[in-house]
Amino acid sequence: MFRSRLAETREVAQACLGTALPASGPMAAPMRHAVAGGKGMRAFLVLEGARMLGIDADSAQFPAAAVEAIHAYSLVHDDLPCMDDDDLRRGQPTVHRKWDEATAVLAGDALQALAFELLGRDEVGTAEVRIELSRSLAHAAGAEGMVLGQALDIAAETAETPLTLDQIIALQAGKTGALIRWSAMAGAVMAGVSTDPLRRYGAAVGLAFQIADDVLDVEGDPDRVGKATGKDADKHKATFVSLLGLDAAKTRAQELVDAACEALAPYGNEAQTLREAARFVISRDS
Amino acid sequence: MFRSRLAETREVAQACLGTALPASGPMAAPMRHAVAGGKGMRAFLVLEGARMLGIDADSAQFPAAAVEAIHAYSLVHDDLPCMDDDDLRRGQPTVHRKWDEATAVLAGDALQALAFELLGRDEVGTAEVRIELSRSLAHAAGAEGMVLGQALDIAAETAETPLTLDQIIALQAGKTGALIRWSAMAGAVMAGVSTDPLRRYGAAVGLAFQIADDVLDVEGDPDRVGKATGKDADKHKATFVSLLGLDAAKTRAQELVDAACEALAPYGNEAQTLREAARFVISRDS
Repeated sequence: MFRSRLAETREVAQACLGTALPASGPMAAPMRHAVAGGKGMRAFLVLEGARMLGIDADSAQFPAAAVEAIHAYSLVHDDLPCMDDDDLRRGQPTVHRKWDEATAVLAGDALQALAFELLGRDEVGTAEVRIELSRSLAHAAGAEGMVLGQALDIAAETAETPLTLDQIIALQAGKTGALIRWSAMAGAVMAGVSTDPLRRYGAAVGLAFQIADDVLDVEGDPDRVGKATGKDADKHKATFVSLLGLDAAKTRAQELVDAACEALAPYGNEAQTLREAARFVISRDS
Repeated sequence: MFRSRLAETREVAQACLGTALPASGPMAAPMRHAVAGGKGMRAFLVLEGARMLGIDADSAQFPAAAVEAIHAYSLVHDDLPCMDDDDLRRGQPTVHRKWDEATAVLAGDALQALAFELLGRDEVGTAEVRIELSRSLAHAAGAEGMVLGQALDIAAETAETPLTLDQIIALQAGKTGALIRWSAMAGAVMAGVSTDPLRRYGAAVGLAFQIADDVLDVEGDPDRVGKATGKDADKHKATFVSLLGLDAAKTRAQELVDAACEALAPYGNEAQTLREAARFVISRDS
């Protein structure tokens, strides 16, 4: 159920992005390259949370595409030589390798703007819903959310002492957690109901996702993961695995998945696919 | 009148940004550095257009700060080594010179997000007004607006033939024009009146502004301009001056200023400060 729904929601978000991206001009190809591939977890969370609360994909496709645009921009910028300096992303050359650094900076910038243009579309809902989605996504993406997490991550690389567990949790809450929480709760904003259960679900899933990423960096097959592995250990970087050990990291991820599923109790059977998604996050091999 | 109003509106926008920027954390100082200085023309256009239409600064300060945040982000990214590679901006070291490239990329990214957070503030107006400002600013900043202009500018540097006048006009309409048009018409969106006159004013002022910039690159004093001059000629770059000649470029700028003032006819004497602003754009020495 989850896998077919993930494939379906990825298609919906990709189709929405496909019509929203520029059809021609110098940014068309690099922006399309940047959003291609990927699991589409954030789009899934938006579309499935919305569906569960009675909001259909004609509306929810835009926030789903918006958060994938923000995620794609962050990857393009994170891959730059001045940041993580990655040649491969999702099994393809990174934007700055396929084009050049200036194009990568601009493609990321344009993708961030596109996200807020998508949230302005009439089909999303009332003006109140649209501006709340927009304001909250801006907060999640910005200097107190995703950008903060990335800045803390970069600072950690040159710090004299490795990060503590609390510091890594704070880093993750920004770097990957902020967008995942936003994705999980977007449907509740659209439906005009409390965002609390889905936000708690998103927080737990986001942290579990990052722990699983650290585990994959140790145990994963680079051909399946689509990028180099073993990088964290090479850099002597503190991770959930280095701080907790492999087994305890996996246990912690499992506890978070249980907490995520419990947060969905108010929604009963309707939340089954979101529960499967939480379990998938820690069992994936890529 | 215009000069005192420009100083006043710059203060308003800077104060608004000052409270909206993060107070601590790794992005606080670079973001503050990025928004410091500058003429504040875009904030002036927002606040003065709004005032003329009966919208006070308690509301208009947020869109004014938002467009200055977008403008500042674009300067930080344009100054990067992979783009224009500038060491000085507004008489100060550029962000990547004072910190590093990664910090400059992130500070720009966070400033773009901040703009959309500011437009979500309740004080700006109804949800309809806020989402229309947000959607239109995203469009102006993105792949069919400011980013497109910058991409065309970079492509022109390696093109085999210099740009034609029409191509330079299209480039400018994106690179600097899109934000200036948005700034000019933001007050009309807030007041719920037709944006046409102010948009025509903004288009003419924006183009005049760029022609004046090209003139300053030839005639300006680097100490007053706050950045290196003579760069366009050094690069054999096609500009309004190289294509039209210095005198004809100045004439063209004057005609645009006249057109800008005519577009304000519906507003009578209330538009006097905006008319002065248009005249200032082509008479400035920095």
